[in-house]
Amino acid sequence: MRKGEETRQRIAAQAAAIFNVAGYGGASISDIMQATGLEKGGIYRHFDSKEQLALAAFDYAVSQVRRRFAEGLMGHTHAADVLIAFLAVFRSYAWQPPMVGGCPVLNTAVESDDTNPVLRDRVRAVVEEWRSMIRNTVHTGIDRGEIRPETDADQLALVMIATMEGAVMLAKLLGSAAPLEQAYQYLRTCIERDVRLA
Amino acid sequence: MRKGEETRQRIAAQAAAIFNVAGYGGASISDIMQATGLEKGGIYRHFDSKEQLALAAFDYAVSQVRRRFAEGLMGHTHAADVLIAFLAVFRSYAWQPPMVGGCPVLNTAVESDDTNPVLRDRVRAVVEEWRSMIRNTVHTGIDRGEIRPETDADQLALVMIATMEGAVMLAKLLGSAAPLEQAYQYLRTCIERDVRLA
Repeated sequence: MRKGEETRQRIAAQAAAIFNVAGYGGASISDIMQATGLEKGGIYRHFDSKEQLALAAFDYAVSQVRRRFAEGLMGHTHAADVLIAFLAVFRSYAWQPPMVGGCPVLNTAVESDDTNPVLRDRVRAVVEEWRSMIRNTVHTGIDRGEIRPETDADQLALVMIATMEGAVMLAKLLGSAAPLEQAYQYLRTCIERDVRLA
Repeated sequence: MRKGEETRQRIAAQAAAIFNVAGYGGASISDIMQATGLEKGGIYRHFDSKEQLALAAFDYAVSQVRRRFAEGLMGHTHAADVLIAFLAVFRSYAWQPPMVGGCPVLNTAVESDDTNPVLRDRVRAVVEEWRSMIRNTVHTGIDRGEIRPETDADQLALVMIATMEGAVMLAKLLGSAAPLEQAYQYLRTCIERDVRLA
């Protein structure tokens, strides 16, 4: 990586942590200057605007989230086990969030939905990735005889994502792992009982 | 109501809408000035600080949310029907959010969790109210023979709140009622099948 690209990546990573804690609206360029140890000019040498920095920071945050899911899903072959592993990644946010400030998908979704269509579209893309992954897992599992053929793949995908992201919100709000633990146990039981075939 | 108190309430209500769309960090006093048609001094005659205005605005937002739940739960006597009515209030956010910008409990929780302990504690209190309401409904239902005695009231409360708030997030993000509709149908089926006794 060229030196300039390395610095750009480092700024994006440090800004991602600031934005994930304080929000894109709540964090100022002075906060980013303090975190990076750079002057304003040093930051804007690499980014045209705060908006461009926000997008690069979100992309960095998503790379951290994707890594967690890739690690968590690795080694599972039965479709029902893949679905449960997906839940377990969110459950692990209780003791090891993908970055400081919690889930950047949740945080950025709630902040950007009314105010920042470019950022909102990037969050949508991550959620659509998760939906596709769950739907494909269900369909492959049905073909392989691992998942009950009557399973509503789209409903299951939306319910799994909604429940676990809602539990991330509650866990942070209440300062307790219980919401993530209970949401995981509840959906895991539902998958074992209603979705797993063999 | 005295004239001063009326003005204070009107400012809090108008600020609540601004904060619920743009966030407490994202909305400026100029935004509030524009919405209320008041000068800065006119606003600060009624509030000591932006923080105090944010708390009054959140209290107003919560009063709107409470009204929706009071209306939605009215007229249901069977404990299982009360639980389903609780889900239905969130489902109705798809076409009629409690205020512009969506659910103020979700929005304020995500924004305040790391940065504003006073506001965070007020959001916690609303979530604790919901948890108590659901737990009490389950316990009363068990006593009356309406709810299966093995029902885990605390798990059900956390899962219901997490799933529906997560679905509110997804519905706004994706611009679609499907997440709320699917979350409602899924949990309703679970309650009818696993929780309702008679």
